[in-house]
Amino acid sequence: MSASAIREILKITQQPDIISFAGGLPAPELFPVEDVRRATDNVLTKYGPAALQYSTTEGHPPLRQWIGSRAGIPAANVQIVTGSQQALDLLGKILISEGDTVLVEAPTYLGALQSFQPYGPNYVQMPTDDGGIDLDALEKILKTTPAKLLYAVPNFQNPTGRTLNAERRRRLVELTGQYGVLVIEDDPYGQLRFTGEAAPSLYELGLEYAGDVDSSHIIYCSSFSKTLVPGLRDAWVQAAAPIISKLVQAKQGADLHTPTLNQMIVTELLDDVLPRQIETVKKAYGERAGIMLGHIKQQFPGGVEYTTPEGGMFLWVTLPQGLDSTQMLVRALTRNVAYVPGSPFFALGGGENTLRLSYSSATPEQIETGIKALGETIREAMD
Amino acid sequence: MSASAIREILKITQQPDIISFAGGLPAPELFPVEDVRRATDNVLTKYGPAALQYSTTEGHPPLRQWIGSRAGIPAANVQIVTGSQQALDLLGKILISEGDTVLVEAPTYLGALQSFQPYGPNYVQMPTDDGGIDLDALEKILKTTPAKLLYAVPNFQNPTGRTLNAERRRRLVELTGQYGVLVIEDDPYGQLRFTGEAAPSLYELGLEYAGDVDSSHIIYCSSFSKTLVPGLRDAWVQAAAPIISKLVQAKQGADLHTPTLNQMIVTELLDDVLPRQIETVKKAYGERAGIMLGHIKQQFPGGVEYTTPEGGMFLWVTLPQGLDSTQMLVRALTRNVAYVPGSPFFALGGGENTLRLSYSSATPEQIETGIKALGETIREAMD
Repeated sequence: MSASAIREILKITQQPDIISFAGGLPAPELFPVEDVRRATDNVLTKYGPAALQYSTTEGHPPLRQWIGSRAGIPAANVQIVTGSQQALDLLGKILISEGDTVLVEAPTYLGALQSFQPYGPNYVQMPTDDGGIDLDALEKILKTTPAKLLYAVPNFQNPTGRTLNAERRRRLVELTGQYGVLVIEDDPYGQLRFTGEAAPSLYELGLEYAGDVDSSHIIYCSSFSKTLVPGLRDAWVQAAAPIISKLVQAKQGADLHTPTLNQMIVTELLDDVLPRQIETVKKAYGERAGIMLGHIKQQFPGGVEYTTPEGGMFLWVTLPQGLDSTQMLVRALTRNVAYVPGSPFFALGGGENTLRLSYSSATPEQIETGIKALGETIREAMD
Repeated sequence: MSASAIREILKITQQPDIISFAGGLPAPELFPVEDVRRATDNVLTKYGPAALQYSTTEGHPPLRQWIGSRAGIPAANVQIVTGSQQALDLLGKILISEGDTVLVEAPTYLGALQSFQPYGPNYVQMPTDDGGIDLDALEKILKTTPAKLLYAVPNFQNPTGRTLNAERRRRLVELTGQYGVLVIEDDPYGQLRFTGEAAPSLYELGLEYAGDVDSSHIIYCSSFSKTLVPGLRDAWVQAAAPIISKLVQAKQGADLHTPTLNQMIVTELLDDVLPRQIETVKKAYGERAGIMLGHIKQQFPGGVEYTTPEGGMFLWVTLPQGLDSTQMLVRALTRNVAYVPGSPFFALGGGENTLRLSYSSATPEQIETGIKALGETIREAMD
């Protein structure tokens, strides 16, 4: 099943009687609508027509400044993009030539596969477990395969909800450094940790490893989509100057610049609204994850495994071998519950018995009813 | 000189003491700032969090509906994009394979060359004159060269300000139809005609020629950037269903969707503000073009040729053979006036003695002073 097949299923799941754990939508009831209204008003007063004019490809300077200073790097090493998805497209465009080996987690973020695909990568899958990428397996791959790029979502990964542990992060940065592999660290969820302790980002470790921001082999992508709102499409990349300079050129050809007004609105919300939103969203997702895990424990039959995320929006279910989550989806829909089958998240296939559940935008009642229905669906499929 | 060199020059020309005819910026003093404020307010009240949530890749349905009905086609044949520049990037991605022949006007829009470049086109230049593309020359090219794509800006072209005449439009649609060449009609300025009579678009003629919206070989791109405001980045593509379907996939990988809020703001402005803005902008640009042409007539020495645009934002100057407009630019800057040298607008080089002037965002005083300074610069260079 392709990405577009999933889109079609997601359309069905938008019917009001379906409880959908399929989408990856942030909870809309938490959006700071009134703050966006006020911020827009302020921005139009402060900047006037300049808020609606063309602007620089690199991005709104105060926004780049803020991101840079938070990361301890110059604003010059920050490129604003139209959603993290654009970061992946542009990085694919400037870094991947036909046939280049690209290392991806198994499973990995589907949207990254979609962004990279037009540039003709040769995917190699890195096995993963509850601690993230299996570094011994990675080292074996690197010994035999000259790879160009490694793509990873180290925090609360989409689709598994797993986090790469601190020890493995250091080893990953060192290994890729030694073997001359560029790393794209995709981190949309990092700020949404609701339990456990944060590990340093690959990017931070990469700065230590390289000793200098412009020699680092780690490229960091993050976004305001999951912390503030997704509909403004504001995200960014942190990278060494030579990569930023290619990104600027690619972005100029791709959409000239990210909408001016949107960047100014986000900038207006950074100091006051963003920290408050992060707390609100973390708390809500933590509660929802807890409720979902509680019901899964009660409702799912033995032999079904699942991850326990420490943040983010997703958890990952592994059915007993032989079950096919794509086939099971039709049965689930007749019980008015939806999920995304896991198989499309594998670049080279596999994972037919896996599925992704999102708890971010469901109410406690929906979670209870939906997980019960899904438990029944699984039992029925196991019979 | 590359596109990025031009960007660097444009940075210099942003210094306040320079009169710049170099930029392609719409006049900011005409932007409907208060209308955008009101529209944002309405949208946030009407849609609430949905205005800030992820939305469909195809675009906001009411906006697609409006565009479709104005063009007399179903909304399904309309794809919303993040600025026309994204249309060019995505069309390049889905239509151009390494080595495909792409026919472009000589000169052509620089941004299109930049968008197509990563996909490895083999450019063939179509000669142009004051009536637009030379159709006899095009027919000769088509007889010997199997081309995949033709890219043209038929109305008030960037950079020349020239318009493809009605008779040639029919012949272009027929010729490309016969030879199986897809056409991208890039039309950001079409609504900004301040004199003369509008010719039918290639897209309209393509519908007649094909007899059916889903068989047409003409792909039409336009934008709200020049009629409303550019900073929201809202534009669209009209095309046959098989092309739209590939565009949707490519756009999903490129940025998921155009910002939700921005599409809703534009939709809010369609009935009331857009028609008023078009009248305001047309009138202003017509006046400014007239003033610039008047001063050019007085100030430029004999032997200098220039176009007389019927709309849009640009006119095109041809210096006597042997003069180099890139070299002359430094001299012009010392007289505090700037333009864009013409040479980078030629896909395969040439046009060293040409330059582009934009009149859209200059005051009458700036035009008078700037054109006088430019006339002196040219005289000096001719000595």
